[in-house]
Amino acid sequence: MVTSVSEKLIPVVDLGGSKIIAALVSYNGEIIAEEHVATLAEQGPNAVIDRMLATLKGVISKANLSLSSPAISRLVIASAGAIDKHNGIVTSSPNLPGWQNITLKETVEKEMGREVLLINDASAAAIGEHRFGAGRGVDNLIYVTVSTGIGGGIITDGKLYTGVSGSAGEIGHMCINLNGPHCSCGNIGCLESLASGKAIAREAQRRITQGTKSLILELAEGEIHNINARIVSDAARRGDTLAIELISQVATYLGIGLVNLVNIFNPEMIIIGGGMSQMGEMLLSPARQIVEERAYRLPAEAVQIVPSELGDYSSILGSVAFLQLDEFNSVR
Amino acid sequence: MVTSVSEKLIPVVDLGGSKIIAALVSYNGEIIAEEHVATLAEQGPNAVIDRMLATLKGVISKANLSLSSPAISRLVIASAGAIDKHNGIVTSSPNLPGWQNITLKETVEKEMGREVLLINDASAAAIGEHRFGAGRGVDNLIYVTVSTGIGGGIITDGKLYTGVSGSAGEIGHMCINLNGPHCSCGNIGCLESLASGKAIAREAQRRITQGTKSLILELAEGEIHNINARIVSDAARRGDTLAIELISQVATYLGIGLVNLVNIFNPEMIIIGGGMSQMGEMLLSPARQIVEERAYRLPAEAVQIVPSELGDYSSILGSVAFLQLDEFNSVR
Repeated sequence: MVTSVSEKLIPVVDLGGSKIIAALVSYNGEIIAEEHVATLAEQGPNAVIDRMLATLKGVISKANLSLSSPAISRLVIASAGAIDKHNGIVTSSPNLPGWQNITLKETVEKEMGREVLLINDASAAAIGEHRFGAGRGVDNLIYVTVSTGIGGGIITDGKLYTGVSGSAGEIGHMCINLNGPHCSCGNIGCLESLASGKAIAREAQRRITQGTKSLILELAEGEIHNINARIVSDAARRGDTLAIELISQVATYLGIGLVNLVNIFNPEMIIIGGGMSQMGEMLLSPARQIVEERAYRLPAEAVQIVPSELGDYSSILGSVAFLQLDEFNSVR
Repeated sequence: MVTSVSEKLIPVVDLGGSKIIAALVSYNGEIIAEEHVATLAEQGPNAVIDRMLATLKGVISKANLSLSSPAISRLVIASAGAIDKHNGIVTSSPNLPGWQNITLKETVEKEMGREVLLINDASAAAIGEHRFGAGRGVDNLIYVTVSTGIGGGIITDGKLYTGVSGSAGEIGHMCINLNGPHCSCGNIGCLESLASGKAIAREAQRRITQGTKSLILELAEGEIHNINARIVSDAARRGDTLAIELISQVATYLGIGLVNLVNIFNPEMIIIGGGMSQMGEMLLSPARQIVEERAYRLPAEAVQIVPSELGDYSSILGSVAFLQLDEFNSVR
């Protein structure tokens, strides 16, 4: 019996700066099995790739299948960083230390004995939200992930826009403050260096080190290095003044980034995902207000700025849609 | 005898913040007659529209034709500002004072008795360079006009990307310095407020008023208000220290804007046009260097940053190509 393409299960990895999600997903987007582990990016590319593949193998076993089973399709990896689509290489990835020209497609194919499709994580998430989430039926949209870093995916005329090499959408590395901090990408004053999870943790650490009293330190169990965006968010919900101030500042920076996207793309929708988006209206309301105040009126009135519907699963489900598109295009 | 569409002449206006070009152009892009006049934008929309139409009528008469002649096609107007493509309205235009929701298409159609196509001037220029100029055969490109203001046109997959309302490409109104000057568009620290012809003239005036000695003032015949970007450029070519410093500063700002475009779009080409582009390598070399230093390596290596080939005629010739595309799409 031949298993038809649309009955196969798709092994997918979402490789981010802080966490890895591995999943086995059906063609209609149902998640059959999944596992979430910390990336531990500081251990470098080899350790991260090993962890990623072990996790994926674990997920496939969980479903009582093996990689060689005919019920398993090609693999899809949605990775943080600038992807060279023609060669399957992660050329650089500011939140994955040591990732310079990593031949991820080839390495994983050798290790797993299966063909691999490689896509940027935020690009995958844009496809995911367009196909299954907040952007269904919306043909011009920008997906923005606000997480450890800030990434983006661009859908124009219903299709992912990847640029000439495959790295389009690096909106986190748009300078919004030419006198701002140095960013890990090599640029100065990037949106990511001001409005990401990393940035809010860094600012909280700096302010507390300088002597500002805050519930943040207590929630971090007294350890300044435990402070992260989630802790700042929790402190803000409990009314902590510093946390509220920091989130308001980050929301303003995010809003400035969104003004740029609104003026440049005149999109129908901007979808905000990533871990920081769990702050909800605390982050989105002030950002929307900056757009209303500063963007051109016509595109500002045309755009909806909404939270992701798929949350942690935007990139995973987008990877499934990406594989389907690839198959569709290759049989046309 | 019926005149076939491809034998008709196309009346075109390029309406910019400083000058108006009216022309009669053949289908293959040959300019039959043309006239250039100052916009005198400070006189407000009605005066500018009257001047624009009088100039266009003059050009048509020059060719011994009249508007009602069957040899004349529909009109195309390429206007500065954010265009509502669905309604033919210039919704706002920072370098045309008083232009708020000007129903330009309807007004000109009533006055001229001919159907009008309305497009943003930089969008038209992008189409022009793609069809007839530096971007022939390049399917992912950004056209940047650096003139009185800064505008942009985006070609993705060989087609103009206009966004959902028609105003996409306002790259001059991308914030690159959140503590920068207020821009006439209502935003803060826009590329246009730092790297345009207006900006360089303003900075030269400020520095000279503060007492800096410079050839610029002499070339402006001692009148501070005569200073413009062309005079600064002339002074720089003659070795004036202040002029060289100002152009170097503007080139850095432009480079930062280009880094953003390179990271966001991963384009194959960026074409620099507009009056300031006549500064040539004095402007382009330092801007390219900033891109090499600060943009992601992959898209920085993929992009060519080149001067416009069509110069003053990018928008005019692009308008012709735009009309042809419109006809092609309407008969499909």
